[in-house]
Amino acid sequence: MRPYVHINCAMSADGKIAGPERRQVRISSDEDKARVKGLRMRYDAILVGVGTILADDPHLTVKGRGREENQLRVVIDPHGRTPADALVVDDRARTIIFTSSSCDREWPGAETVRMDAVDIPGILGALWDMGIRSVLVEGGGTTIASFFAAGAVDEFTVFVGSFVIGGSGSPTPADGPGWVREGGFRLRLCGAETLGDGVLLSYRPA
Amino acid sequence: MRPYVHINCAMSADGKIAGPERRQVRISSDEDKARVKGLRMRYDAILVGVGTILADDPHLTVKGRGREENQLRVVIDPHGRTPADALVVDDRARTIIFTSSSCDREWPGAETVRMDAVDIPGILGALWDMGIRSVLVEGGGTTIASFFAAGAVDEFTVFVGSFVIGGSGSPTPADGPGWVREGGFRLRLCGAETLGDGVLLSYRPA
Repeated sequence: MRPYVHINCAMSADGKIAGPERRQVRISSDEDKARVKGLRMRYDAILVGVGTILADDPHLTVKGRGREENQLRVVIDPHGRTPADALVVDDRARTIIFTSSSCDREWPGAETVRMDAVDIPGILGALWDMGIRSVLVEGGGTTIASFFAAGAVDEFTVFVGSFVIGGSGSPTPADGPGWVREGGFRLRLCGAETLGDGVLLSYRPA
Repeated sequence: MRPYVHINCAMSADGKIAGPERRQVRISSDEDKARVKGLRMRYDAILVGVGTILADDPHLTVKGRGREENQLRVVIDPHGRTPADALVVDDRARTIIFTSSSCDREWPGAETVRMDAVDIPGILGALWDMGIRSVLVEGGGTTIASFFAAGAVDEFTVFVGSFVIGGSGSPTPADGPGWVREGGFRLRLCGAETLGDGVLLSYRPA
């Protein structure tokens, strides 16, 4: 058994989630930001990879909510690179960092789960055992690609912002080593909705 | 003066125009293929970069049309890498290859224009002088990025196919060295239309 997994991200019209060298770009419209806020409140946990922590330092909480109301925050961080002063380990919500057995770092604001192999099935199994039934994955590209590669995606939404970023090295919604599945991971289009100056595309696995 | 420039491409839901190592993927739906055929017939010239020739070997013609009816084919190829047996230099349409002055290659099926600096303003100026008033740019990512960087885009359409490819090195609609413009090149969304199992997004410069 594993939690329901919803992947959500925002990309430019040329498929980038950030600028070159992962420089942050405001891709979402205000309407999309409101949607993501509502989305977060519907999930048991919000998950990102450590690359997103290092690039964007997100807090992954909903403004105005207290520690007990906020969703569990989950970071995949095999090598223990989450900074001690990262917002994700502040006291605004409970946080779990999945790291490898060989990493001995501790974070005062977070619990750690150490695994011999930090992989998606293992992480989802551990979250399930903690009572987590739904996870919203917010990035980055390497993390999202690993969820698709593991076949662990129930829903995929991507907001397409109206500009072009460029750069063969700029991060995209699904990075990683190559195919998430040979020939591509097939989806079924469930919706295309204008949200402010962009478009929200919704998919489920085919 | 320069011709009207329309950029058209197809990408996966994670912003890839091909698989890792530029491996070809059928991204367009049948409905989108029919649209592109109609699009080609409305333009004076169809332009691609040599990377697309090497990866896909496209003929860039409309099936069933004769040499005189087909659009001018244009290839940007500074180092003269277009193979002698590439479909783009067959006899189905007139072809112009833009290459650099230091390249002395000839192609029996194509005319060559040699330039000291092979750049977008120079190419568009030369095409204008030949009577070309509209150009459809079909890729690849490096070529499209250079058109955005030159500010030479009047219309941008991208079909979003319903699957995820993955790969930090997979080509995207706008590659190249980095920003096509610092912070991104702003567009205005003009349409989002379902076409078969994908979505066609239409933009103009903001």
